[in-house]
Amino acid sequence: MGLTLGDLARAIGAELSGDPGLVVERVATLQGADGAAVSFLANRQYRRLLGSTRAAGVILSAQDAPACPVAVLVMENPYLGYARAAALLGPQDRPRSGVDGMAWVSPEARVHETAWVGPHAVVESGAEVGPQAQVGPGCVVAEGAVIGAGTRLVANVTIGARVRLGARVLVHPGAVLGADGFGFAQAGGTWVKIPQLGSVVVGDDVEIGANTTIDRGALDDTVVEDGVKLDNQIQVGHNCHIGAHTAIAGCTGIAGSAHIGRHCMIGGGVGVNGHIDICDGAVISGRSVVYQSITKPGQYASGVPLLPQETWARTFQRFRQLEDLARRVKRLEQDAPARAAFSGAEEEE
Amino acid sequence: MGLTLGDLARAIGAELSGDPGLVVERVATLQGADGAAVSFLANRQYRRLLGSTRAAGVILSAQDAPACPVAVLVMENPYLGYARAAALLGPQDRPRSGVDGMAWVSPEARVHETAWVGPHAVVESGAEVGPQAQVGPGCVVAEGAVIGAGTRLVANVTIGARVRLGARVLVHPGAVLGADGFGFAQAGGTWVKIPQLGSVVVGDDVEIGANTTIDRGALDDTVVEDGVKLDNQIQVGHNCHIGAHTAIAGCTGIAGSAHIGRHCMIGGGVGVNGHIDICDGAVISGRSVVYQSITKPGQYASGVPLLPQETWARTFQRFRQLEDLARRVKRLEQDAPARAAFSGAEEEE
Amino acid sequence: MGLTLGDLARAIGAELSGDPGLVVERVATLQGADGAAVSFLANRQYRRLLGSTRAAGVILSAQDAPACPVAVLVMENPYLGYARAAALLGPQDRPRSGVDGMAWVSPEARVHETAWVGPHAVVESGAEVGPQAQVGPGCVVAEGAVIGAGTRLVANVTIGARVRLGARVLVHPGAVLGADGFGFAQAGGTWVKIPQLGSVVVGDDVEIGANTTIDRGALDDTVVEDGVKLDNQIQVGHNCHIGAHTAIAGCTGIAGSAHIGRHCMIGGGVGVNGHIDICDGAVISGRSVVYQSITKPGQYASGVPLLPQETWARTFQRFRQLEDLARRVKRLEQDAPARAAFSGAEEEE
Repeated sequence: MGLTLGDLARAIGAELSGDPGLVVERVATLQGADGAAVSFLANRQYRRLLGSTRAAGVILSAQDAPACPVAVLVMENPYLGYARAAALLGPQDRPRSGVDGMAWVSPEARVHETAWVGPHAVVESGAEVGPQAQVGPGCVVAEGAVIGAGTRLVANVTIGARVRLGARVLVHPGAVLGADGFGFAQAGGTWVKIPQLGSVVVGDDVEIGANTTIDRGALDDTVVEDGVKLDNQIQVGHNCHIGAHTAIAGCTGIAGSAHIGRHCMIGGGVGVNGHIDICDGAVISGRSVVYQSITKPGQYASGVPLLPQETWARTFQRFRQLEDLARRVKRLEQDAPARAAFSGAEEEE
Repeated sequence: MGLTLGDLARAIGAELSGDPGLVVERVATLQGADGAAVSFLANRQYRRLLGSTRAAGVILSAQDAPACPVAVLVMENPYLGYARAAALLGPQDRPRSGVDGMAWVSPEARVHETAWVGPHAVVESGAEVGPQAQVGPGCVVAEGAVIGAGTRLVANVTIGARVRLGARVLVHPGAVLGADGFGFAQAGGTWVKIPQLGSVVVGDDVEIGANTTIDRGALDDTVVEDGVKLDNQIQVGHNCHIGAHTAIAGCTGIAGSAHIGRHCMIGGGVGVNGHIDICDGAVISGRSVVYQSITKPGQYASGVPLLPQETWARTFQRFRQLEDLARRVKRLEQDAPARAAFSGAEEEE
Repeated sequence: MGLTLGDLARAIGAELSGDPGLVVERVATLQGADGAAVSFLANRQYRRLLGSTRAAGVILSAQDAPACPVAVLVMENPYLGYARAAALLGPQDRPRSGVDGMAWVSPEARVHETAWVGPHAVVESGAEVGPQAQVGPGCVVAEGAVIGAGTRLVANVTIGARVRLGARVLVHPGAVLGADGFGFAQAGGTWVKIPQLGSVVVGDDVEIGANTTIDRGALDDTVVEDGVKLDNQIQVGHNCHIGAHTAIAGCTGIAGSAHIGRHCMIGGGVGVNGHIDICDGAVISGRSVVYQSITKPGQYASGVPLLPQETWARTFQRFRQLEDLARRVKRLEQDAPARAAFSGAEEEE
């Protein structure tokens, strides 16, 4: 069950200083660790807890090593070391196989013999469930959908008709892929539905959070490329395209036909306008709103920091008057032209 | 399967210039179309793609017709033409009927003989499912709920007790209608639940997006009128009233007892305060916050545009000092009264 | 079925002025009430409706009593009186018991004989369902999860492995407790998953809204203390801690490792940053963003009030120039040093 520090260091790519024979059985926080646990330090905020840890060893960077009272596993990216150690020491997934007696599988569906279809799951006509794929309890895989090898729908997931998921995709409960995009034409004050004829195509190694929704395209497909990580309660509109290895935090909403590049990092609660482009490598802070395309990588923000309620009320009263304030400053400047010129001269000296 | 351009033009109400005998089989984008497809141009942004399209014909407005290299189907509202063409050429819904052997239907429920109750669906005591209604896999229709004629619950939808849906309503997966409204009274630092005794009443021809939630009223009902279109992940609080033919984009949250008028358009990620009124015909940009009633139709906004992170930090530092800045400008003006008067006189000339 | 006003007043702790023998059968709004209903006045906004009510009696505060045309039930907190009256007069919950023939219960699960497991529900190996607990239709209780006494999962709820719920918890449809937290380490431009080994622990008397998601912790547990009330579509990240009796309105997102105190009130659509602390008793207005820790109780806000679209565009243009405006004011002040000093002197007089 356990692993020696020596074996662990080799497996995660760290350099060990300390007793290589010590056995650890789990990963724990600096505070929560005991002598059978390995811990890690990746966030500066928690450095103060290092001195008092009782872990057998700590995965950390070279600069933090001297302050550590126990064995150290030094590597450049200790957070990656923690990820690897937790995967090695945590419980191992044992994929199930077979079709549960309380599942409903169409005779025209193809379920691989190594796949699992759990109780109360539904696999409709023409759908395919690949090798070792896991269709958990209460999941619905609609007509013609494709679930790739090793992909897992945890529970109560809905996969719409013709949606295609790649290999090793992990979809958390309540996620909905392939609902109709939101498209209507106006006709005399009422709305006429635009049939949503496209689908959703998801690459390999994607993770999709609980209650996240990804709509099918109107004509073309909505696309989520390989390695994308989506947190909970994200909404992806029809015909969006999310580039490979982009990560998006919870509660973010992306309007239709937005095109997001590769290797982007988008914070929680962000709003992305429709029909815009975000270039590769953009980093967007939580609660920002992206109305226009972003053409240069870098970090962007638009969230409004918190104020005490009264200060907030006064400040926003002033904010509404900003146009007026700017005009008044302009008038003051126009009234003092000589001074302004003089002041400019001063600055140049 | 296909349709001639001549028949299509007549069916959608467009004027054809080009060969009326050409047969099209599907709708496609300007870029994606081949000679068996009809396309459309409704968004100015895509006009540049018109010249190179290989579609058999394009639905567009009169002013765009001259630039089109293929047959044109001219109409005032090409987006409406596209909606109609896609409905004609897309796959036709074939409503299913009967109660699946793996559905659970109370003997005290009434399910019309032309309705469908899919596998793992539940229809509880006293519930009614109307003609040609579709209760998809995993849906729950609780006690006394009413599902109108031709209404479709796609999959994993939850309809609470006594909730009533009109005819031809489309409810996407994961939507929840009739959960308890959020109401508590304070009593000595703890919360006492207010029983939520009202229900949810939804009119005809409403569409409700994936994972959208509409809470039951506290005493009276929450009401969604005919023709309302709700996108995904919208939250509608108890006792809200949404007027006919209003459309609301994804991730918008509407607090309890808000009253939204008819023919409104509300963007994505908007927040609407409780106990306020929004008049008919209001248009609210994405990510706005509506704290107070809106009494005049028109377009409104409050979202904060994106800035590079450093500019954002500096600008919001200044923003916090806005009250101080305004006072300093006032003092400068008071110190220069003659000039200000003179400047004012100048403007009047 | 009914209750006399005299009995009702005693039961809710109000002082009655009026006929104690009048029988009421339900609670209704001031407008909707007839002679068989008791109503209440708790929100100043509705005082104008008091004079014309036809209720048998009204629960209200002493200061509103003189304006009431019918019997009054006077108490300090009329909203609490309404909560109690509605509980007494509303339909009474009758907990069901037994395991439905269409439920799936592992032989290694423990379901109390007074508990109910509804149709299409799943209770996996090692899970426990306590006395009078209600596992509604379509709910999934994964391996080793614990559902406390009297707790109710309404329908289509997903409870992940090892998640523990206390007594009398109410979980609305579509809620997901115990999906993986959102944690990844970067490795050469791709993301490596951090196994999420903690769980979710929920106290007693908690209410969790429809489609709300609470992620499991990475190493330690995510904790929701006793008496917390969460509205719909709230996202709680991994390792968050929400203190007892805190209430949070819909669509709020809380990033990982945030620590929220006891007795807080957080409005709808709020964003809370990760790894911060919010002290006990903080009140945060709807649509605010909390980037930094809050250390003093009080009311806070950061939402941007709505403006007509054109005013909004002009005002935000000025907003982007705020840094420039502040510099220009500073220069004007520097150019008029004598006056500024004089003006300062005036203020001190």
